[in-house]
Amino acid sequence: MPVIALKTPSASYDITIASGLLKTLSQRLKRLKAGKPYRVFIVTSPEIWKLWGKRVLASFGKEQPTVLFLPAGERHKRLRTLESLAEQMAEAGADRDALLVAFGGGVIGDLTGFLAAIYMRGVPYVQVPTTLLAQVDSSVGGKTGSNLAAGKNLIGSFHHPLAVLADTDVLATLPKAELRAGLQESIKAGVIYDAKLFSYLERNADAVLAGDVKALTHVVAASVRVKADVVSKDERENGLRMILNYGHTLGHAIEAATNYKQLLHGEAVGWGSIAATGLGWMRGMVSEKEAEKIIALILRYGPLRPFRARADKLVALTGSDKKNRSGSLSFVLPKKIGVVEIVRDVTKDEMLAAAEWMMALMKSESSLKTKTKTVKKKAR
Amino acid sequence: MPVIALKTPSASYDITIASGLLKTLSQRLKRLKAGKPYRVFIVTSPEIWKLWGKRVLASFGKEQPTVLFLPAGERHKRLRTLESLAEQMAEAGADRDALLVAFGGGVIGDLTGFLAAIYMRGVPYVQVPTTLLAQVDSSVGGKTGSNLAAGKNLIGSFHHPLAVLADTDVLATLPKAELRAGLQESIKAGVIYDAKLFSYLERNADAVLAGDVKALTHVVAASVRVKADVVSKDERENGLRMILNYGHTLGHAIEAATNYKQLLHGEAVGWGSIAATGLGWMRGMVSEKEAEKIIALILRYGPLRPFRARADKLVALTGSDKKNRSGSLSFVLPKKIGVVEIVRDVTKDEMLAAAEWMMALMKSESSLKTKTKTVKKKAR
Repeated sequence: MPVIALKTPSASYDITIASGLLKTLSQRLKRLKAGKPYRVFIVTSPEIWKLWGKRVLASFGKEQPTVLFLPAGERHKRLRTLESLAEQMAEAGADRDALLVAFGGGVIGDLTGFLAAIYMRGVPYVQVPTTLLAQVDSSVGGKTGSNLAAGKNLIGSFHHPLAVLADTDVLATLPKAELRAGLQESIKAGVIYDAKLFSYLERNADAVLAGDVKALTHVVAASVRVKADVVSKDERENGLRMILNYGHTLGHAIEAATNYKQLLHGEAVGWGSIAATGLGWMRGMVSEKEAEKIIALILRYGPLRPFRARADKLVALTGSDKKNRSGSLSFVLPKKIGVVEIVRDVTKDEMLAAAEWMMALMKSESSLKTKTKTVKKKAR
Repeated sequence: MPVIALKTPSASYDITIASGLLKTLSQRLKRLKAGKPYRVFIVTSPEIWKLWGKRVLASFGKEQPTVLFLPAGERHKRLRTLESLAEQMAEAGADRDALLVAFGGGVIGDLTGFLAAIYMRGVPYVQVPTTLLAQVDSSVGGKTGSNLAAGKNLIGSFHHPLAVLADTDVLATLPKAELRAGLQESIKAGVIYDAKLFSYLERNADAVLAGDVKALTHVVAASVRVKADVVSKDERENGLRMILNYGHTLGHAIEAATNYKQLLHGEAVGWGSIAATGLGWMRGMVSEKEAEKIIALILRYGPLRPFRARADKLVALTGSDKKNRSGSLSFVLPKKIGVVEIVRDVTKDEMLAAAEWMMALMKSESSLKTKTKTVKKKAR
């Protein structure tokens, strides 16, 4: 059972990745706050709860938790949702000894963490991520937040959970598209920090994509190790932690351009990673061979759904991205598999070239598939 | 020029109390973040800005600050106001090097501090309090927050300012009722921690209430010293800091019962302090003589406007108060002037008795005044 430690100046906690964690949730929560009385509030979505609620409740004895619901989807990651959850907690008499449990995907994790950060100026919480994306990335590292109309995650807090409990059982009910999208963050972890993970993803693509529990557990654990290591070295994103934004600068712009509706976060990150890799190659930072390997793996874990957007609009949308520090945009570009560099002198023209190149690749990819389908149809 | 240092594990900063600080605001802000480029965003109310905006802007050269407006009043201390301010910042291109300035009373200070705590997961801010209440109490100590429908300050963050700059000049334009209400927090500081301040307030009531700058500066500085000292010893309100809640348990209930409209915060705290003192006397914790001195001083700095509420409703409203930790209510009761005790075994009946006693005192006070007025009228 992989248990990964995360240590920062403000918090130390374990991320546990294993089958069967939900069955023992109540006991695990009790162990975290030994001796202290608390009241458990679970924040989840109706969809997740329908599938796994019974198993969770069974672990609680007489002291049943209060369950608060949040509709799924990025458009609910807003302050009005947060306020409604806070009002429900207050109505239920929650005080500073409430313990929140974020039981769901990235949106639920980010918003519940933010709620925990600000409810009565801070209560503890535990992450129980149910999507691959949340297990490999968003549940780890203490970043919590909410969107504004002006952009994603523009408000939030650093607030670490007491623990992350990633039960790999729940991945069995995850739609395949979400599994694939989440794996783009694992590819990212490989590209920026861990060549061995990258190679594992190359060699075991079939097993991983088929949802083989052993292979998935390996990938989740390796991805979490990358994130925990990076966050332990730079909690507040003053330097190293920025490398986690690889693929995200244009990725966020793509999400904004498509109104956060058309693509899954991981898909947008996949396209953004392709653009960043292309830019690294254009700049001569990464060899053509390595760049091709990266792009091939991203596409192998596809299909990434195509989208319509003008390249110059995408570039404009990066300008209001929160990664923009004092007017100069930081861009994370690959040097070789496992090593990236934070570059601060990327011009608008370079970004435009990279975005156009990515859009061209998207068109050739989808036309290739259309052709293949046509050929296959004819062959029948 | 009194400069008071506040030191906690998470932040150290100065609170400066002096005449003329607004005239040099820009230079003072620059000194705080030496070398680092930043963009100043001032959050204020139209009323304050009309009176003092020109003076503030004159201190800025070519780099004029962006001014964001917030309507005055407790009912605007809500997440929707916060969201609107955050959207305006994002529209103006604010990034992590924005510096927020809270220029106003307690509501503006609390909400701007909260905005600074969560905008892009934290930007720096400076408190420039313009009411006596904000200068002596709310601008100091790093508590920021917003109200919910369910109660006051139920969400928020601990986020310290880089500095507090309290310009005593602005108190000249403060309505007398607000000055008097703010002074209730100074009386509180005396009762809980500083017998000398209490005695100063007794001896110099005429000068202080007349708005004499020297006397007010003394009172503001002494009150801030109490708060800075308490917060330095217990930043997160795990123990000692709770004493600052003297008068606030019932005070908040009174504000809730009157929909935050009828009384100023300081007035509600005044009534709450009277009830707490009465309760201390009923319990035999404080002598009748000391209790009478406390109540006399609170009334001397009145009039505290009367309000209508049933005592049992007030008691019920303390139950959802955020000071409620794990079901047992903490109450701060006086032992003698300058010394209080945090009591956790106050029963509902005791609270009810104290609230009824306070309401009775209120009636006798106002009937006394009606009688006096009648007598005076007759005498004309």
